[in-house]
Amino acid sequence: MSDAKQTIEVLGVKAKAASRKMRMIETRAKDEALKIAAAFLRSDMADVLAANALDMKAADENNLEPALKDRLALNPERVESMAQGLEEVAALPDPVGAISDLVYRPSGIQVGHMRVPLGVIGIIYESRPNVTADAAALCLKSGNAAILRGGSEAIHSNRAIALILRRALCEAGVPGDTVQLIDQTDRTLVGALLAADDYVDVIIPRGGKSLVARVSADAKVPVIKHLDGICHVYIDKAADRAMAVAIALNAKTHRYGVCNAMETLLVHELAMDCLPEIIDQLLAKKVEVRGCVKTQAINSQVIAATDEDWATEYLAPVLSIRVVDDVDQAIAHIEQYSSAHTETIVTADYVVGQSFLREVDSASVMWNASTRFADGFEYGLGAEIGISTDRLHVRGPVGLEGLTTQKWIVLGHGEVRG
Amino acid sequence: MSDAKQTIEVLGVKAKAASRKMRMIETRAKDEALKIAAAFLRSDMADVLAANALDMKAADENNLEPALKDRLALNPERVESMAQGLEEVAALPDPVGAISDLVYRPSGIQVGHMRVPLGVIGIIYESRPNVTADAAALCLKSGNAAILRGGSEAIHSNRAIALILRRALCEAGVPGDTVQLIDQTDRTLVGALLAADDYVDVIIPRGGKSLVARVSADAKVPVIKHLDGICHVYIDKAADRAMAVAIALNAKTHRYGVCNAMETLLVHELAMDCLPEIIDQLLAKKVEVRGCVKTQAINSQVIAATDEDWATEYLAPVLSIRVVDDVDQAIAHIEQYSSAHTETIVTADYVVGQSFLREVDSASVMWNASTRFADGFEYGLGAEIGISTDRLHVRGPVGLEGLTTQKWIVLGHGEVRG
Repeated sequence: MSDAKQTIEVLGVKAKAASRKMRMIETRAKDEALKIAAAFLRSDMADVLAANALDMKAADENNLEPALKDRLALNPERVESMAQGLEEVAALPDPVGAISDLVYRPSGIQVGHMRVPLGVIGIIYESRPNVTADAAALCLKSGNAAILRGGSEAIHSNRAIALILRRALCEAGVPGDTVQLIDQTDRTLVGALLAADDYVDVIIPRGGKSLVARVSADAKVPVIKHLDGICHVYIDKAADRAMAVAIALNAKTHRYGVCNAMETLLVHELAMDCLPEIIDQLLAKKVEVRGCVKTQAINSQVIAATDEDWATEYLAPVLSIRVVDDVDQAIAHIEQYSSAHTETIVTADYVVGQSFLREVDSASVMWNASTRFADGFEYGLGAEIGISTDRLHVRGPVGLEGLTTQKWIVLGHGEVRG
Repeated sequence: MSDAKQTIEVLGVKAKAASRKMRMIETRAKDEALKIAAAFLRSDMADVLAANALDMKAADENNLEPALKDRLALNPERVESMAQGLEEVAALPDPVGAISDLVYRPSGIQVGHMRVPLGVIGIIYESRPNVTADAAALCLKSGNAAILRGGSEAIHSNRAIALILRRALCEAGVPGDTVQLIDQTDRTLVGALLAADDYVDVIIPRGGKSLVARVSADAKVPVIKHLDGICHVYIDKAADRAMAVAIALNAKTHRYGVCNAMETLLVHELAMDCLPEIIDQLLAKKVEVRGCVKTQAINSQVIAATDEDWATEYLAPVLSIRVVDDVDQAIAHIEQYSSAHTETIVTADYVVGQSFLREVDSASVMWNASTRFADGFEYGLGAEIGISTDRLHVRGPVGLEGLTTQKWIVLGHGEVRG
């Protein structure tokens, strides 16, 4: 057996054992552990910042990109925000053990569902050290054991945070191995983790597209993943014009680098009257506008959009605009180019809105609201571990429920099958 | 591109197109298609039986095992039962489009779930031709497009049944490509289907353990699978003795070759008084009884059980019995040897029953009922495509809901994020 495989097996055996105990752990103990961890983060902040300083020094020496360094950097505000995140997860309702749909069957048995943890969750992430605390908290609250693999550039910070979490677990009487960090930066360990289907129930990659693509390609373990967010807003001919302008601008310009930002605006030919204002406002905000021929005719600053534009997640102040004949052409465009993340229609027409809602096959389909609402907090999940662009198990924002599954329970009175 | 890959791609493109149309198809049209197919099966029964005769002739020539030949054989009763199966699926409620949990959020938007089809489902099965009709019906009703790959020994029967289904689809105005049969017996096509993640959303293998293991190992597409059913009954010290005897006998002897039959009986030391009667009745029914030392002491016909017994799915008139110290030892035994399919406790003790229900991590966990109830019909699903022993997406009996997923829907009134 390779060293990497053996290292992962040791972690895996411990995680499995912790996960078995976690099935029975009281809600109170889990919440207590999270609150103690928050307190430790505050009281031992100096340790975390000192560890982070080591990572930042190495980052300087290795000439890390400024954007990466910004993600890596911790300061008192960021540690405080991590602590508050733990407290917020503690305050969420516990999904584990919830029983639903319990009904009597003609045989006399009662049948229903009980929500249970997934088991052992592997989290693979990049440079942000706060993911160590966030991901661990969500796994813990949902009754799972976590095996965390952060970026090598954040190893000192992650070690310090994981140590605090494990101390808090022990203090609260929760198995310490509920949170384990892969404490070596050896890359072969990632491969071994992805193959460890005897020990790991699901892998969640958190990071850029190349990380997610690699994890999906190599994993033998099921993956809950987020790929692109090529989101569309479609302004129907029956759209309230002021609403359409407000939603289009919010969806594009509220934040640029986020997966739920609009990347393409589709406009019904008979709703083109709202385009001049939208384009003026976008240009005023320094957004580069690319468009089809009809869009270009409106404003000379609109650049010609190519086929590649429709398939691009800009994550930047760039927008492509296409004028369409009708809602069917809009849906066909979405079908072809969308990443099935989030799509919105703006319309006051009941029939058109209903059919868009049903026909568009995206994780979130909206009617008269900004795509920016596709978010765990906005949906009421309290927190999210990511946004799934998969189809099975869970779609869209993944909160505590997405980290659980349901088993069947049967309550009988001695029934046998005849 | 290999021939196999190309063949699957042609089917895949058609299936994707059918699946897009299926999202919008009316419930009435789907039900109509199923009812027409049932009528065609009856009116054209001679065609189906003639095709089956070709398969049976080839089976004779190839000296197929009698058990396989029995599974392959069709007769008027079996075709009638297929037709009734289609009608039963037609009578089930349509899960597609159902909206749940729609709530208002502080931002003003309404957020909820809409149930939607998975998309394209690949079904890989063995010799039973009725699976062609059953699986297609469940995929159709749940709004999915099916690509069917049956056993090569049933190719003529499957062709005849698929043809009838496709004629019925067209008659009812449902896209014919909702049901496609891989019409060649070339084995490389299975490999190509398992790798076709651009076209296929999930693969469901239906058949013996080796088929399922091969499919799971090779698939790039997500798999919903059934592995072993090593089911346990635990008789607690607080069990009603007559109930315990009845459940144990029913769980073992109602049917032997089924995945929800009991394979191991665990008995609390202080409930051993019910063992003599259970063992007598099992022996009277010609069930071979294997047991631990304490069980052997009860009856000289009990054979010594080995470690291998605890890990064996007999699917036969054989039972292993172990006496345990308490419920914790019973749960530990289940944790070690169970296939996480179905476990039952017999007890009148509220605390013990509750902890068994919560702690045992199986797809179905029962209290005072026979394991034989772990079944889609008994649970009220109306029909099942199989029983999942996976953890993600769906556990236990998989009915129409298990063939769907949920997207988020947002109903707004012009809300934007501030």
